[in-house]
Amino acid sequence: MPSHTKAVPVSETAKRSGVRTRQRRAASLVPTTVELIAAKRDGEELPSASIRSLLAGFMRGEVADYQMSALLMAIVQRGMTARETLALTLAMRDSGRCLRLKRSGGPKLDKHSTGGVGDKVSLCLAPLVAACGLRVPMISGRGLGHTGGTLDKLAAVPGLRVDLSLRAFESIVDGCGLALMGATQELAPADKRLYALRDVTATVDSIPLITASILSKKLAEDLDALVLDVKVGRGAFMKTPRRARALAHSIMRVGQLTGLPVRALLTRMDVPLGRAVGNALEAAEAFAVLLGHGPDDLIQCTYALGVEMLLAGKLAASARAARRMLEEARASGRAAALLAEMIRAQGGDPRVVCEPDRLPQARARVNLHCAEDGHVQDLDALAVAQVALRLGAGRTRADQSIDCTVGIVLLKKPGERVQAGDVLAEIHAASSRAGLAARAPLMAAYTLGQRARSQAALIIERVRPPVLRGVGA
Amino acid sequence: MPSHTKAVPVSETAKRSGVRTRQRRAASLVPTTVELIAAKRDGEELPSASIRSLLAGFMRGEVADYQMSALLMAIVQRGMTARETLALTLAMRDSGRCLRLKRSGGPKLDKHSTGGVGDKVSLCLAPLVAACGLRVPMISGRGLGHTGGTLDKLAAVPGLRVDLSLRAFESIVDGCGLALMGATQELAPADKRLYALRDVTATVDSIPLITASILSKKLAEDLDALVLDVKVGRGAFMKTPRRARALAHSIMRVGQLTGLPVRALLTRMDVPLGRAVGNALEAAEAFAVLLGHGPDDLIQCTYALGVEMLLAGKLAASARAARRMLEEARASGRAAALLAEMIRAQGGDPRVVCEPDRLPQARARVNLHCAEDGHVQDLDALAVAQVALRLGAGRTRADQSIDCTVGIVLLKKPGERVQAGDVLAEIHAASSRAGLAARAPLMAAYTLGQRARSQAALIIERVRPPVLRGVGA
Repeated sequence: MPSHTKAVPVSETAKRSGVRTRQRRAASLVPTTVELIAAKRDGEELPSASIRSLLAGFMRGEVADYQMSALLMAIVQRGMTARETLALTLAMRDSGRCLRLKRSGGPKLDKHSTGGVGDKVSLCLAPLVAACGLRVPMISGRGLGHTGGTLDKLAAVPGLRVDLSLRAFESIVDGCGLALMGATQELAPADKRLYALRDVTATVDSIPLITASILSKKLAEDLDALVLDVKVGRGAFMKTPRRARALAHSIMRVGQLTGLPVRALLTRMDVPLGRAVGNALEAAEAFAVLLGHGPDDLIQCTYALGVEMLLAGKLAASARAARRMLEEARASGRAAALLAEMIRAQGGDPRVVCEPDRLPQARARVNLHCAEDGHVQDLDALAVAQVALRLGAGRTRADQSIDCTVGIVLLKKPGERVQAGDVLAEIHAASSRAGLAARAPLMAAYTLGQRARSQAALIIERVRPPVLRGVGA
Repeated sequence: MPSHTKAVPVSETAKRSGVRTRQRRAASLVPTTVELIAAKRDGEELPSASIRSLLAGFMRGEVADYQMSALLMAIVQRGMTARETLALTLAMRDSGRCLRLKRSGGPKLDKHSTGGVGDKVSLCLAPLVAACGLRVPMISGRGLGHTGGTLDKLAAVPGLRVDLSLRAFESIVDGCGLALMGATQELAPADKRLYALRDVTATVDSIPLITASILSKKLAEDLDALVLDVKVGRGAFMKTPRRARALAHSIMRVGQLTGLPVRALLTRMDVPLGRAVGNALEAAEAFAVLLGHGPDDLIQCTYALGVEMLLAGKLAASARAARRMLEEARASGRAAALLAEMIRAQGGDPRVVCEPDRLPQARARVNLHCAEDGHVQDLDALAVAQVALRLGAGRTRADQSIDCTVGIVLLKKPGERVQAGDVLAEIHAASSRAGLAARAPLMAAYTLGQRARSQAALIIERVRPPVLRGVGA
C-alpha cells in the first residue's frame, strides 16, 4: 500500500455524496461516479445512461460539486463525442420543464448569439420576424464579462420586468408572438448550476459543454428551428472562424440528432456592432432600427439573421422573399408596434420605442475629440467593451449590479473620414470624472491614419451543415 | 453575451470561496484561482508562489474543493514540471509541522514502498536497520484497495497503538531508534485533505501528485535519506518498469532539489511477497524473519532494501559490509528484541514477536487442495489480494473496518512442485462458509502445469539517479 493512498477521513461533503453513492452502488454493476470520471479522464466515451445518471445525481446532490468539476475539466481536456454531447444536452433539458405554447400559431423560432460588443440584434430581430408571423420565445442571458446581455438592454426600459414566471411568459408569447425573459429555475435548471460551477473552475471553454448549455435551453423552448449567430473576432468568445465553425457544427450536429434544425451564420466581431455600446443606449439604437433608422452594419446583421429565421420557419420560399418581408415589417412600423405591445405586456413603458428620451439617461456626457484629419482605420471591440465595463455598463461577476445608463456612442467608426475637432465618440458616464477617465483608453481603441482602409465583410459565411457521420464521430 | 455565460447566482460555497477570493484579489496583480486553473488547463507552468498560495488557500477554505479538484484533473492531464512538483511538495510539507528528534543519534532513514500484495517488508526492515544504528521514524499508511498497509499489519498486535501524538512518537524513536504510526493531522495535513479529494475525483493516478504526496510526508519526517521500493507488476500500482522508473525518477529529482538523497529499487510484484497475505498472518511472518526463519523472497527483498538504507546512512562502506551487518542483527536476535521494545513502547504485547500464537486468530480455517501432480507455474498477486479483500482483510473505502485475523497462507508458490492432495493454501476466514467460498477464486489465482517454469528475478534494478537537468525539465 503506498502511503499516499492511506486511509483518510473523507470530508463531510464527500461522505454525503460521492462516497455514499459508491457504497450504495458497490453491489451492482452500475459504474460509480469515480469510475465514470476516470473513464472520461482516460479519453473514453461515456454511455448515455451514465451521463444522465451523473447529471441527475449532481442535481440531487449525490454527485458532489468537486466530482462534477473534475469531470468537467476532464471533458475540457478530452472532449465529448456527438453522442455524449447529445446525452448531456437532453439530460440538462430534462432537469426542468419545457415551454408549453398554444398549438395554433406560427412556427416557433429563436436566434442565439455567442455574444459580441454592441450586439443588440435580438431587440431588432425578434419584433421583425414576429411581425412576419414567427413566434419568438426568447429566453436570454444577462451580460457577463466584456459582452453585454440582451436582457440587460431590454431591462433599461422603465418598469419592464424580465423575471417572469414561465406561465406569464407563455401567455405573452401566445398573445404578442414574442416575449423576452431571463433564465428561470423552471427551464433547464441544470445549466444554471453547471454554469455557475464552470465559471469558477476554468471549465467554460469547451465546445461540447457550450453546445449542451445552449441547446438544452433552446430545446426546452420547444422550438421548430434555431438560428445561430456565431461571432468571430477579437470582440467575440470565438477568436477564429475555424473555432467558430467547430462550435456551429457541434450545435448543428446535436440539433440534427434531436430533430431541431439549426442554421448558423459566422459574423465578424472585430469592431463593435452599430454605434451604441451600453444598455439603454443600445436599446435606443435597436428601437431606431425598427423605426427605419439605425446603423447599416446592425441592419445588415439583423436582416441576414432574419432571412435565415424566415427560411427555417418556412414562411418564405427564398432569401429574396424573406428579405422583402422583413423590410415591409420594418417600413410599415408593424415590428415597432409589436415590440411596444410586448413591452407593455411585460410591464414596461411602451412609449420608449418612439420616444427614446424616456429611457434613463447618464448623469454626465463627455466627448472624445479627434486631433487631426484622417480616416478611422480600426476600432478594437474588446477595448471599447472594456471601457464600457469600467464605466459600469457590464459586470465581471454574476452578482454585480450594472448601470444601464452608461456607455459609449461611437460617432465615428472604421471606414469613416474624420476632421480635426470632430467628436469621435460620446462617453455616457455616471460622473464627469468617470467620463474623462474613459477618454484615454477609448482613444487607444481607435486606430486613425491618413489612408482609408477597406473593411472586411460583416457576414463571414453561412455555415454549411456538417456531414452527419455516425453518431460519436 | 452568449446565454450560456449568463449571470447566475453562484452557489453558496462558491460565494464563500473562489468568488470571494477573486473579488478580494481583483485589484491586485495576483492571479485569481480561476486564472491559475485555466493556466494549468492550458498546459502552462504555474509559478511556485502561485502553487503555494493555491494550497494555502485550499487549507484555509478559500480555494473551494471543486476548484482544487478541477486543478487536480488539469494536473493529471497536463502534468507538472519538477519545479512545480517541488513547490507543491514543500507547500504540503509546510502545511503542518516537522518531526523533531534529538540531535544525537544515528542517521534518520525511512523506506517507502508503493505497495504490493503480502508486502510486510517494513516490519522486518525497520528493526533490522535500527539494530544496525539507523533511526527509523516510520509514518505509514493504512491499506486501501488491493494492497495492505503496514499500519494495519502492526495494529494486529494486541494492545498496540498506532495513533500516537507526534510528541509520543518522537520520544519512542528517541528511545528505541524506531517507531511506527499512522498519518497524523500534525504532519503534512494538506496531503490528507488532498488525498481524500483525489480519491473521490479519479485524480490519484498522476506521477507529480504521487511524488508530492510521498515526499511531503517524508520531508516532514526530517530524514537524512530515503529509500524507495517501487513495486512493478500486476499486483502493484505501477504496471510497467517504465512507469515505475518514471515515478522513482520524479521522487529522486524532487528529493535532490530539496537536499534529500533518495535511492530506489524496482522490485517485482507479480506474485505475492512471502507466503502470508492478511494482517495478523503477515505480522507473524515478519516476526519469523527476525527470528531467522521466513520465506526467501521476503528476506531477499528486506536485505536488498536494508543494504540501500545502510549505504545511504553511511553506516556501511560497501553493499557486502551492509549485508553482513543486517545478517548479524538478525542472527543475534537484536532486531527482534528492538521490535519487541518498540511494541511495548507503543502499548502492545511484546511477547507476540516470539510467540505469534498470541496474535488474534481467525475463527475458521479452510484448506485449498491440489488435484494433481505438477508444478506451480504462476500465482496472480492481484487475484490473491482480491480474495483476501473479500475475506475482510482489506478495505475498498477509507471508512471501512477490517478483520485483522483473516487472510491466506500460500503453502505452495511458483517454482514449487506439488502432488495431488497437497495443501496449496490455508484460508483463514471469519466463517467456514466464507473460507469455502474463497476456494474457487483462490484456485483460479494459481496456474499449475506439468512443467516447471523459471521465475523472474525479484529485484528488477537499482534505479540510476536521473540526470538533474535544469529545474522544470
